[in-house]
Amino acid sequence: MATARDLELANRLADAAGSVIRPMFRGDWSHERKADESPVTEVDKAAEAAMRAILESEAPEDGIIGEEYGTRNESAGRQWVLDPIDGTISFMAGRPIFGTLISLVQDGWPVLGIIDQPVGRERWAGRIGQDTTFNGAPVRTRSCKSLSDATLASSGPQYFSDADGAAFMSLAAQTSKIVVWGGDCYNYGLLAGGNLDVVCEAGLKLYDYAALVPIVEGAGGLMADWQGNPLDADSDGRVLALGEPARLEEVLEAMG
Amino acid sequence: MATARDLELANRLADAAGSVIRPMFRGDWSHERKADESPVTEVDKAAEAAMRAILESEAPEDGIIGEEYGTRNESAGRQWVLDPIDGTISFMAGRPIFGTLISLVQDGWPVLGIIDQPVGRERWAGRIGQDTTFNGAPVRTRSCKSLSDATLASSGPQYFSDADGAAFMSLAAQTSKIVVWGGDCYNYGLLAGGNLDVVCEAGLKLYDYAALVPIVEGAGGLMADWQGNPLDADSDGRVLALGEPARLEEVLEAMG
Repeated sequence: MATARDLELANRLADAAGSVIRPMFRGDWSHERKADESPVTEVDKAAEAAMRAILESEAPEDGIIGEEYGTRNESAGRQWVLDPIDGTISFMAGRPIFGTLISLVQDGWPVLGIIDQPVGRERWAGRIGQDTTFNGAPVRTRSCKSLSDATLASSGPQYFSDADGAAFMSLAAQTSKIVVWGGDCYNYGLLAGGNLDVVCEAGLKLYDYAALVPIVEGAGGLMADWQGNPLDADSDGRVLALGEPARLEEVLEAMG
Repeated sequence: MATARDLELANRLADAAGSVIRPMFRGDWSHERKADESPVTEVDKAAEAAMRAILESEAPEDGIIGEEYGTRNESAGRQWVLDPIDGTISFMAGRPIFGTLISLVQDGWPVLGIIDQPVGRERWAGRIGQDTTFNGAPVRTRSCKSLSDATLASSGPQYFSDADGAAFMSLAAQTSKIVVWGGDCYNYGLLAGGNLDVVCEAGLKLYDYAALVPIVEGAGGLMADWQGNPLDADSDGRVLALGEPARLEEVLEAMG
């Protein structure tokens, strides 16, 4: 269970990260490569540090799983899962469609999530059992009567193995064939708000997907792995989001 | 030659299109498919109609080549080339990275261009022989000392034929391997502003690329087709943009 107080804390974490990121957008920062060759900037690190400082002072018993600075209190039942900039490539290229991801994971299950776009000042927030909000107002996914009407999104072909890419292409062929490329977490916010129907990705880490689950589900959508199972801390990083839960079987079938 | 008066008129066209598009962003509009299966919304059409009305009243001798409503005064030396929403899929999905493209083409050569993002209120403007501006202030591309440092962008893999896709992948392998997907005209604005190094696309129409040429070149960059030739009204739609003109030979070599 995530409380209103947890949400208030999460909002302050997002504010803190945004204050670090916003002035550096299209600015001058250094970057390096991580072990997997993905880029990370000093802004990613500074934004995570700002969030961790607040958690260490206000929630010292809780655990932290951060993309850039690792874990703290690994055995705690409550874990704050942080991705300071999801979509670092968009940030580096000056596109306002990256996001700060904040999630509270309880006993392995995501119970609270925030996607914050600090440049456009757009914030999606979800708590299990509550309506998802966009800048404070409730949002709902849209209905999708047939997979052939669906708009599909994914961050980029390079994130798929050959086999995963084939499953994605097979799905794409059954949709409206309107495919949105790029966008990372921002696509899930758009799905929650009724602008997209399906997001299909692979290779995500817990800090990439934990925040998305309460947001998508609190807006009436569904998130699952590629077998249709709910996402928890042990999922394999293959992720589906549907605005219309009733389309799940067709999506899974289309992917073979 | 485009005059300051032409630029002032182009700015008013962009204002008119933005006034139509902005209130419809993430709104309720209908769409249909064109002969090539690409989607077009009623907003695309209304925005082009708003621009054409101004041109018909203020520049009745000039020609118009519009994505949605075709040509007028085909034989005129001066042609206004209009794409009311470049990146219709991004518009439909609620992503603020589409743009209105306005160009003046004189005897087949683009001499003035505007990329306008009406939601974020971002406008790039270029005139041959003049500095490109972003929201009124001059911008420059960034230097790129080696292709292996370059950030590469393209709107989506679906726009490439198999052979063109192979050339793109071969280029991507020689860059930093940081690839930005999606974005349409917005990527060229980001390149002009020094946030990206190379854009490589295929299948573009005159109304997709004409506006980009004066913007990229007035910021210090270079645009060419895949043989390295300048773009004019008869180009084949395979387009390269480089922030650092000195990298052209390496890019062409990398593409085989």
